[in-house]
Amino acid sequence: MTDSGKLLLELFLMFSSGKLLAEVCERLRQPAVLGEILAGVLLGPSALALIHPNVMTRGLAEIGAIFLLFTVGLETRPHELLEVGGTAVLVAVLGVIVPFVLGFVYMKISHGLVESIFVGAAMVATSVGITARVLADNGVLATRMARVILGAAVLDDILGLIVLAVVSSLSTGQVVYLQLGIVTVEAIGFTLLIAFLGPRMVRKVRPTVERLRTRNSAFILSVILCLGLSLASVYIGMAAIIGAFLAGLAMAEHSEEWRLRENAHPIMEFMTPFFFVLLGAEMNLRTVAHPGVVLTAAVVCLLAIVSKLIGCGLGSLRLGWKPALQIGVGMVPRGEVGLIVAAVGLGLHTISDAIYSVVVLMSIVTTLFAPPVLRLLLRRP
Amino acid sequence: MTDSGKLLLELFLMFSSGKLLAEVCERLRQPAVLGEILAGVLLGPSALALIHPNVMTRGLAEIGAIFLLFTVGLETRPHELLEVGGTAVLVAVLGVIVPFVLGFVYMKISHGLVESIFVGAAMVATSVGITARVLADNGVLATRMARVILGAAVLDDILGLIVLAVVSSLSTGQVVYLQLGIVTVEAIGFTLLIAFLGPRMVRKVRPTVERLRTRNSAFILSVILCLGLSLASVYIGMAAIIGAFLAGLAMAEHSEEWRLRENAHPIMEFMTPFFFVLLGAEMNLRTVAHPGVVLTAAVVCLLAIVSKLIGCGLGSLRLGWKPALQIGVGMVPRGEVGLIVAAVGLGLHTISDAIYSVVVLMSIVTTLFAPPVLRLLLRRP
Repeated sequence: MTDSGKLLLELFLMFSSGKLLAEVCERLRQPAVLGEILAGVLLGPSALALIHPNVMTRGLAEIGAIFLLFTVGLETRPHELLEVGGTAVLVAVLGVIVPFVLGFVYMKISHGLVESIFVGAAMVATSVGITARVLADNGVLATRMARVILGAAVLDDILGLIVLAVVSSLSTGQVVYLQLGIVTVEAIGFTLLIAFLGPRMVRKVRPTVERLRTRNSAFILSVILCLGLSLASVYIGMAAIIGAFLAGLAMAEHSEEWRLRENAHPIMEFMTPFFFVLLGAEMNLRTVAHPGVVLTAAVVCLLAIVSKLIGCGLGSLRLGWKPALQIGVGMVPRGEVGLIVAAVGLGLHTISDAIYSVVVLMSIVTTLFAPPVLRLLLRRP
Repeated sequence: MTDSGKLLLELFLMFSSGKLLAEVCERLRQPAVLGEILAGVLLGPSALALIHPNVMTRGLAEIGAIFLLFTVGLETRPHELLEVGGTAVLVAVLGVIVPFVLGFVYMKISHGLVESIFVGAAMVATSVGITARVLADNGVLATRMARVILGAAVLDDILGLIVLAVVSSLSTGQVVYLQLGIVTVEAIGFTLLIAFLGPRMVRKVRPTVERLRTRNSAFILSVILCLGLSLASVYIGMAAIIGAFLAGLAMAEHSEEWRLRENAHPIMEFMTPFFFVLLGAEMNLRTVAHPGVVLTAAVVCLLAIVSKLIGCGLGSLRLGWKPALQIGVGMVPRGEVGLIVAAVGLGLHTISDAIYSVVVLMSIVTTLFAPPVLRLLLRRP
């Protein structure tokens, strides 16, 4: 078959089966995103082996995640995020410390130091895309609870960056403090710069935007900003989606006037399924079957859920029991971030195949756990 | 740099420079699409060598072309296309015969039989994407002239399929008539089936579509149809964009009710620049510099323009001089189809490097010639 045929077959299979299982999930009162992830598990190497993660599908998935977080950003005002800033910081910090400590202590009982640190670090990860999608699908992005999750997710990416840098340096035996300091300052500086000055800069270029000949010019410029900030994020060492979220944030004020949401939404709807279906396909159940580690895996999965519930729940308890519980569950999914951390560990020979299985399984379980539980908690009482 | 960074850098460069040069072109009263193609020439291996045609960028370009033709299809009703059917057939057939004969005869003077047939065949190609974009940007898709071009382009793809099959078989020395017959019947049958039965089938599934739980379900289904028919087209041997156009045609009746155009348009706006910028990047000016063939190249370029003007113009003369001229110019660009034919010829060792340059140059010249001239002809007198 030609390249064109292969590509179209993959696109067709991913999109149509993702949407089919999403419809099935909706009918079973389950979140649509769960259906898309399960479609990926089904089509991927775990079962039918009809699609394979490759340059093209990974690229589409990345664009999908970028547009998901961009649309979420468009619905969030920076000042609303700052209002919950204190809570978000607490949620992010406790959401890093509690999982790390619980994971590390449990592993240390029967494993070496480096492996224990690694599993602890992998438990720190948060995949905000999954939760953002559930929040958006349930129309609750405007609540304080959702804002705390989004704010904490941005901070979490910065903290995760530091944790991953430390863990990566474990294999070489020494931590490069200066470099680590620079990366941290860059990430925090970039985030604050865009969050504070972004909206002001957009207001400044407004007259120019409206003089452009290009049709729909404001939207075109917002896409350029979105791609540009995603790229900048990656250069700094953060996830591309953080840049996309910040770009949405910077343009949020003009979202209605320039019809940005109406334009970004269909692109998000078309591209995002590729992210979730591929996420399912990356979860190779065949590599997880390590009979020797069943107990370890079960405990790590449990700790991964409980530690985020405790850490993030405690951090946001001032909002009340129910929002705190929703925030805790919302921070549980490790998704693609957990899978990436596992792959890094295996690549650096920091962990054994068995521990790799444990981390991958932890990512899978937390990813499948969060959407249905969060949806249940979001239902009006 | 990471894969993610490389991908985002390419996306950012392609989209932002394409849109920048499109704006410049608009200000110079030139079509936007010309700016996007020139951005590709500038970024590609001809000049800056910042982007390279690869699996990912080719994939995005293909999706861009698919959504372009899908949106064009959504604005075209099948019965309107049938009304101009006779004229479209005449335009397509004469638009194949005249370029082939002129190209063949001229080349035969100083070249071998196989090479002459090949150049003639390459002159038959039509890249409907370029013209469709100019027509859409100028808001004239609803005119008879535009419908003749679209109808002729679909037929042209079928005729081109036959011509390319014959040419490809030249290298093996024998034409497989039976296979050729099957391919032709399949292509014509598929096109007629979708054009006639498509809208009826869509009307039938309408109650089901409206009962689905998935939000925006009609649009989601139309995207699945678009990807599915594009895939089917490729299986049959036709271009994916023909399937996408037919999918749009089948859904056109419900385009307003289901807000299909409003949803497909932003995706088209985001993805299509990748098609045109990549088209520019594929036009490698460095490989065209063959000093020995300057005269041949110049004559072939001239014949490529004149032959379509004569063939397609004559075919549509009953619509009047001006529409006939517009149709003639609209059928001139060879674009990516010409480049593909040239690559096939080189791959099969049917043509020399020098003749390859001539065909590539012919594609470039016709691609850059058509948009400004067509725009000039579309301006109200």
